[in-house]
Amino acid sequence: MPVLLAIRFAVIAALLALLTGLGSAASTDADRLPILPYPARVSGAEGFLAVQNGFRVHVDGPVDPLLEQTVARFLERLSAKTGIRFLAPRAADQAMATLRIRSTSPTPVWPGLREDEAYVVEVRPEGATLQAANAFGIRHGLETFLQLVEFGAGGAMVSALRIEDQPRFPWRGLMLDPVRHFLPLDVLKRQVDAMAAVKLNVLHFRFADDQAFRVESKRFPKLHEAGAEGQFYTQEQIRELVEYARQRGIRVVPEFCVPGHTAAWLVGYPEFGSRPGPYTLIRSFGIFEPTMDPTNEALYPFLDELFGEMAGLFPDSFVHIGGDEITGKHWAETPRIRAFMEERGMKGWPDLQAHFNKRLLPLLNAHGKRVIGWDEVLHPDLPRSIVVQSWRGQKELGAAVRDGHEGILSSGYYLDLMLPAESHYAVDPLSNGGDALSSDEASRVLGGETCAWSEFITAENLELKLWPRGAAIAERLWSPRERMDVPFLYARFPRLLEELGWLGVEPERIRRRMLARAANDSDSLDRLTRVAEFLEPVKRYHRADSGDYTVFRPLNRLVDALWPESMAARGFRLQVDAAVGTPNLAALAAVRVRLEGLEADARSLSETVVGSALLNDAAGDVERLAQSAALAADAVRYLEAGKKTPPGWLERARTSLSQMEARQGEILNMLFAPAHTLLDALSRSPAEQGTFKDSQP
Amino acid sequence: MPVLLAIRFAVIAALLALLTGLGSAASTDADRLPILPYPARVSGAEGFLAVQNGFRVHVDGPVDPLLEQTVARFLERLSAKTGIRFLAPRAADQAMATLRIRSTSPTPVWPGLREDEAYVVEVRPEGATLQAANAFGIRHGLETFLQLVEFGAGGAMVSALRIEDQPRFPWRGLMLDPVRHFLPLDVLKRQVDAMAAVKLNVLHFRFADDQAFRVESKRFPKLHEAGAEGQFYTQEQIRELVEYARQRGIRVVPEFCVPGHTAAWLVGYPEFGSRPGPYTLIRSFGIFEPTMDPTNEALYPFLDELFGEMAGLFPDSFVHIGGDEITGKHWAETPRIRAFMEERGMKGWPDLQAHFNKRLLPLLNAHGKRVIGWDEVLHPDLPRSIVVQSWRGQKELGAAVRDGHEGILSSGYYLDLMLPAESHYAVDPLSNGGDALSSDEASRVLGGETCAWSEFITAENLELKLWPRGAAIAERLWSPRERMDVPFLYARFPRLLEELGWLGVEPERIRRRMLARAANDSDSLDRLTRVAEFLEPVKRYHRADSGDYTVFRPLNRLVDALWPESMAARGFRLQVDAAVGTPNLAALAAVRVRLEGLEADARSLSETVVGSALLNDAAGDVERLAQSAALAADAVRYLEAGKKTPPGWLERARTSLSQMEARQGEILNMLFAPAHTLLDALSRSPAEQGTFKDSQP
Repeated sequence: MPVLLAIRFAVIAALLALLTGLGSAASTDADRLPILPYPARVSGAEGFLAVQNGFRVHVDGPVDPLLEQTVARFLERLSAKTGIRFLAPRAADQAMATLRIRSTSPTPVWPGLREDEAYVVEVRPEGATLQAANAFGIRHGLETFLQLVEFGAGGAMVSALRIEDQPRFPWRGLMLDPVRHFLPLDVLKRQVDAMAAVKLNVLHFRFADDQAFRVESKRFPKLHEAGAEGQFYTQEQIRELVEYARQRGIRVVPEFCVPGHTAAWLVGYPEFGSRPGPYTLIRSFGIFEPTMDPTNEALYPFLDELFGEMAGLFPDSFVHIGGDEITGKHWAETPRIRAFMEERGMKGWPDLQAHFNKRLLPLLNAHGKRVIGWDEVLHPDLPRSIVVQSWRGQKELGAAVRDGHEGILSSGYYLDLMLPAESHYAVDPLSNGGDALSSDEASRVLGGETCAWSEFITAENLELKLWPRGAAIAERLWSPRERMDVPFLYARFPRLLEELGWLGVEPERIRRRMLARAANDSDSLDRLTRVAEFLEPVKRYHRADSGDYTVFRPLNRLVDALWPESMAARGFRLQVDAAVGTPNLAALAAVRVRLEGLEADARSLSETVVGSALLNDAAGDVERLAQSAALAADAVRYLEAGKKTPPGWLERARTSLSQMEARQGEILNMLFAPAHTLLDALSRSPAEQGTFKDSQP
Repeated sequence: MPVLLAIRFAVIAALLALLTGLGSAASTDADRLPILPYPARVSGAEGFLAVQNGFRVHVDGPVDPLLEQTVARFLERLSAKTGIRFLAPRAADQAMATLRIRSTSPTPVWPGLREDEAYVVEVRPEGATLQAANAFGIRHGLETFLQLVEFGAGGAMVSALRIEDQPRFPWRGLMLDPVRHFLPLDVLKRQVDAMAAVKLNVLHFRFADDQAFRVESKRFPKLHEAGAEGQFYTQEQIRELVEYARQRGIRVVPEFCVPGHTAAWLVGYPEFGSRPGPYTLIRSFGIFEPTMDPTNEALYPFLDELFGEMAGLFPDSFVHIGGDEITGKHWAETPRIRAFMEERGMKGWPDLQAHFNKRLLPLLNAHGKRVIGWDEVLHPDLPRSIVVQSWRGQKELGAAVRDGHEGILSSGYYLDLMLPAESHYAVDPLSNGGDALSSDEASRVLGGETCAWSEFITAENLELKLWPRGAAIAERLWSPRERMDVPFLYARFPRLLEELGWLGVEPERIRRRMLARAANDSDSLDRLTRVAEFLEPVKRYHRADSGDYTVFRPLNRLVDALWPESMAARGFRLQVDAAVGTPNLAALAAVRVRLEGLEADARSLSETVVGSALLNDAAGDVERLAQSAALAADAVRYLEAGKKTPPGWLERARTSLSQMEARQGEILNMLFAPAHTLLDALSRSPAEQGTFKDSQP
């Protein structure tokens, strides 16, 4: 077994045991490697392979430019990660090589839906081998190899092992929304690198919506000229991005949502709207009425030309037509559309949407495209060739695959809801809410996509909101279904973040910089950084409750700088669980010290908070954090002392917590859960039980 | 007076007072703004200017593309720093503008030696104005304005004030050495941005030396082909860099050192060497023998053509010919060169070097260049037009300007010596070691250059070694001579680092990432990060003592990841001084707690240190840090208790510290100084004085 990894993992496991209160060290076997997503099959071996100045790669197989680029990039990254400059890293023959790579067939120019992504990597002290069908599998193997490189006592090394790996699902996507807040090209490229690191393979863009149309159209220039306020991707940039993704084995699927969510199209081309117009760009977020008119015969040649132009930019065999959240209001309000529907016996807007889709599909097929749409497109009249992306629920995915469609799951994978990684990790594309799928139906589930809608995400904080949570979904889609060890998932996050750091993806750096902007001086910044670890943005769609947000409002305040899920807060919650689970004075004292420090930090921040416009609307949150820390510390003191609480204290404490909870707005206080745990423990404690008995008649 | 700045600086001043033990808050006047380098004249005013969505700039003056680019970049940076997207940030007329910029003349295409860099900025609640001769001064004013932007309670703002500013010296340089370790273009561009932020205006590159020749020559391609192992700047990259610098008001001065330090030239062109060759690239560091043969008539047309080609790449009016560290050995060993010298009555190699320089100068002048050389070029035969860069000492600068040359100072400004910022800050180009310069002589001191030789600097850690120390020198060269407040210099560093962070220059991030590479797991990383704050790299040239270093040895170990000067260690030293200066039990207790934490961190790291090749040669340093922390904590305990130390304890403690100090190698322990301070305080304490009296006969 890899000795050094074993040592390292013994440390992690010990820490984990401490946090989870399991009390036993995890095994140091091949089931505990720092790889994310975890491979299908791993077996350990003895010793390790040194990675030194003389490290050399030999590539054997058909001539393959993509594979050559993949290997060159791997060597650059290995050099950056280790700080070692490899002088002549390509071996002329196998015998000279440290790592022998063998592919069996040339890589297709464009990745398709069901490529062979499997690979086998074998590491021995005397050298390593990596085999796969082509560059797609080789690239995954090299990502795995890179994740395994670490510094042992003798230098950089990879522990000896054998990995046989392949993905569980062929469609493993990330959907980005550059509409509501624009995402510049360099930000997108970094996400491509991060995706490749966690073996995602589809990058789906919602390029057009009510707020903007973000791709240059030479054929219909008013789309981006009137629809993007200067913030759009030129065709040259799109080509650059698509090529960048191709080199990393990632398909780019463009979405041009029709016929709803189209206000930005209609600003330049109002003649395709259901109402006469004029239309304006929508600045707020939600569901809006502007909708194309499916009864307008001129609409179809327009879409045919536009999708044809886009087909030249996006070579992937799929195009996404959106289709979500149509209200039907403008259709119902327009006599000619109502008449059209009545003539054909249509019962409501879903029938007209199906009519529109049936007209559109052959045009897209003629451009060589298969079509994917959100689950609202599902309709009995629709051809089975359309792929359904289920966002409303797992039931919709089940309905689609029972109906003969292929489908992918996004329900449960929305990163913009700011939910914990474990909640996404628990969602399996095949679980379907308990209803069994036949194996035939299950085979039509292509995989899933994590979505990051950008109402509250900007180019600046995107990475803070995507990673590492996105990696939990990547593992769900790649690794065997049985891989369900939540503590081990979280245990691998710090190391994954270090790996992503070498690619320039550094959420903690973004967090710190946004906090520094808010705090102005470095002394307050340290305190704010600690305090912010116990705050999270409100979950689901509640942030929009105030209705104050538009695309113009800066997202530079405290809530924007928070981890969606704070690992520190999670760790503290587990620490409290463990401390009260097996009552232990040392563990309780450690909890109390942490709470005292947190209270002091929060209290000493009050002046900073009031003095900064980026913090002062969170003044109540910081104040309540201090109060709840004080309250929780008091509870710990009673537990430590084994003393009865004063009469009514527990009840008042609970009321106080509830009142504080009720006052939360955009920011959640992550101390409430551990505070309740402490109060519950106190109410169960022997001293309180005595109190209870005392009060018996 | 700017209210919010005043509050903020009151906090900093209080902290500073705490650290320095001054015990009094600094004034909140216009002498305490967070600007670095500090302006010549500042006066405060009432209120502040808000920086909001509607922020608009109007530019008035002659048409000036450079100024337009400068303003556009300023707006991008203002947007990044504040997180605010400015929708229409250019005002059509003055009345609409938040910031009115007025220049009086068009900016020269290329910056020259004595441009008018002065500017006046005036900020009032109703708007701001910025005036300067051209884009050079305007750019400085905008850097100042950016540094002043911060978040107050009402949003982003700049406090009302008036600044009249201009540089003290016209030549304010940074010398980089991409020879010993290559520095890629993106790293260089970031340094250009950082230089511009601290108002440096000359970027000097030593492009060729014994280890490499780093610029593509189309005329003599064997220079870079045989001399750079593939790591050189293409001519296209050079043009890109020079243009990038030009847009930021920075001159690029190339150095091609001749006739010594030329082994890399002679690999491809051995015919110009003093000895027959063949020559090879030198892998180690120091002074080597390969030298061009000044008696070879073919050498001058070669250099003429090469410098002519380079003159086309580098439009600055200066070219640097190096000229340092000639040994004369190969000249003395070569009969034809000896004969040449004897024929002309030359007394030694300096005469032959002067002969060479006299032949070379007219050729360079014919290419439109003035010449600068290191102080070894100084020779009575040399024309006074040559500028002397003094690296050996201030005396050499004095000699040069007395002799009628213009000169710049680099002695005292070598960042690669890893000295504290305050030591560089204390060096004034005009102090000349106490010898007075006449005003005429002083007027020939053009300024100075900070140098970063790269024996122990790489592309990865360059920024960790350059900033913020380089800013201390930038202030010395820009600000009035009287600006000499060392605590205030250090007090501005954290804010400066945040400013540089918005430009992607983030030394702390580099430090953390290099430590993460060494530590592998996040738990140890936190401890290592704290421990590393009390370690610094050995000063001056002692790191080379072992002789183990070559250009190939990776610089990825603990010593490479350390701050050259640790602000945390400095702060602790001042904290100890203050605690023993005005004996105070609370202050002593705080010192002890810090020492206990440090000891615990260092001890708990022992397994991590042994387990990582990047740490294990520092095992002794970490162990000694733990021991010295324990010893210092014991001393504090005696001071706190006011008790006599056991007989012999003080002496043993001093011996133990001395022994530990003697064992330091590449890494210095920054606890030794405060530990000595504590022992000294103890030996002066009443309890010990009693002991001393007791032992009297």
